[in-house]
Amino acid sequence: MLALRVDRKRLAVKDVEKPDRPDEVLVRVLLSGICNTDLEIARGYAGFNGTIGHEFVGVVEESSDRALVGRRVVGEINAGCGNCDLCRAGDSRHCPNRTVLGIHGRDGAHAEFLQLPAINILPVPENVPDEHAVFTEPLAAACGVVERVKIDSSDRVAVIGDGKLGLLCAQVIALSGAPTLLIGKHSSKLRIAERRGIEIMTPKQALKRKQQFDVVVEASGAASGFALALDLLRPKGQLVLKSTFHGKTELDAARIVVDEISIVGSRCGRFSPALDLLKKSAIDVDSLISEEYPLANGVHAMRRAGTRGVMKVLLRP
Amino acid sequence: MLALRVDRKRLAVKDVEKPDRPDEVLVRVLLSGICNTDLEIARGYAGFNGTIGHEFVGVVEESSDRALVGRRVVGEINAGCGNCDLCRAGDSRHCPNRTVLGIHGRDGAHAEFLQLPAINILPVPENVPDEHAVFTEPLAAACGVVERVKIDSSDRVAVIGDGKLGLLCAQVIALSGAPTLLIGKHSSKLRIAERRGIEIMTPKQALKRKQQFDVVVEASGAASGFALALDLLRPKGQLVLKSTFHGKTELDAARIVVDEISIVGSRCGRFSPALDLLKKSAIDVDSLISEEYPLANGVHAMRRAGTRGVMKVLLRP
Repeated sequence: MLALRVDRKRLAVKDVEKPDRPDEVLVRVLLSGICNTDLEIARGYAGFNGTIGHEFVGVVEESSDRALVGRRVVGEINAGCGNCDLCRAGDSRHCPNRTVLGIHGRDGAHAEFLQLPAINILPVPENVPDEHAVFTEPLAAACGVVERVKIDSSDRVAVIGDGKLGLLCAQVIALSGAPTLLIGKHSSKLRIAERRGIEIMTPKQALKRKQQFDVVVEASGAASGFALALDLLRPKGQLVLKSTFHGKTELDAARIVVDEISIVGSRCGRFSPALDLLKKSAIDVDSLISEEYPLANGVHAMRRAGTRGVMKVLLRP
Repeated sequence: MLALRVDRKRLAVKDVEKPDRPDEVLVRVLLSGICNTDLEIARGYAGFNGTIGHEFVGVVEESSDRALVGRRVVGEINAGCGNCDLCRAGDSRHCPNRTVLGIHGRDGAHAEFLQLPAINILPVPENVPDEHAVFTEPLAAACGVVERVKIDSSDRVAVIGDGKLGLLCAQVIALSGAPTLLIGKHSSKLRIAERRGIEIMTPKQALKRKQQFDVVVEASGAASGFALALDLLRPKGQLVLKSTFHGKTELDAARIVVDEISIVGSRCGRFSPALDLLKKSAIDVDSLISEEYPLANGVHAMRRAGTRGVMKVLLRP
């Protein structure tokens, strides 16, 4: 089968063996999405070698659970060991021995087939098209913000970063009824949020509203976004760190202590709230799709995904 | 009256006018305590010039509330403007226009007299001696940890730093019933905690317990303490930042995001829980007192307070 693979920072579509672990579900991939994490992995982040990709929708080809076969599905990307304290408490996302689809110790979704444990597999509601279902993983990550921080309709919330993650986070948070501001530098991207009734602003404009926000979500992945987030937070406010920086950033501990700020890390989220939102068409994901390529053109697609202004790039095996 | 003052990083005991704002309570200081923040202010931190000191117990000499006159009291150190949103919501500790006793815009407690608004003044229970009451402010700061982070008796908690603040934090947290570990480098200080049934360890020993703690309180004020705190936290654990670092430290955003760590800043705490603990003799503060000097010897006392191994130094006007 074809698979888009990284081997010591070299990216190529290769013909490889179909996966064949008998204890896992075999999924034929219908569509996969290129995430910024894929671009980072291709540059050597996390030291992963193998098939990349972790956003997908597919059809179950083989499973010990016969009811699953033929179902259209998505899959949670963290596969826990099943035996540690965290897994037994239902939190395989933080299992120290976990594998992660296309990121750590497990071949990923930019391929004709992939495998995951049955416990990771969720059927997709019938009315959700493939092009929406492929957003389940990043939308779950956006929903992860409200798993980690309680947001009331009276909270003033700002999201920094108008990339795919920022646009999803802003839309999810706005559904809570909280007045939500999306801060970014790209007017065409900001307009996607504006159409959903979300206030938009450039970072420079936002600096006029220092210390006015109860919650700020940093989704730009830039150290400058982290600094802006601290500027915007009121005392005792909460900063949700949603994306990792390249390298390290400076922390002004005095500011955190004196103003009693909380910094809350947020990574993945649960899939079922995301599927619910897609089922209700509550989130505009169509506007986030820029381009689609056959899997065979995966290397070119990755290049396009890394091009300024290009948003979600999809791969079809 | 005598007062220990900082003037452009120069420290001296001076004879100054007694404060005379008619709208505030006048307190005759019985005893004041030297805090590490005083040492930092004397080195230029916060750019404060004036009488330093914010830990005290005293007797009310003048007040528009006649019932207060003659009472033995302590006082919350943040004086809010009374008019902003935060003050109206009862949180003068974060008022942007606040003054802070001996720290910001208001002469402090290492003096024969001080003034504070009546709302800041709390009577001291009769059975609490002056030498304990003078610990109300730092003990309130330790109690501030459990204001900011809910600690259950099943939580595994580590406190980093065996200075005065770390010893108070460890004692307060241990009262919750949670198994508490104090990590420090000074065996004589660690023994104070050990006598209260708190487990003790060096930083090197603690590294054998990586990712095993639900809550870690950083009270060492060293960047190495911050790094150790992150090492000790389990995924989704909470790091309470209790003391500011000198300068900035590096933040590994990827670690915060991937392991979904929370970093919670904590500064002051409410005085009434601290007074309750002192009334019940629930905290060993006697062991924290190293030396006492007359206020006139304030400059020498500050030097002693900054000497390795010396803990709380008290000043008596």
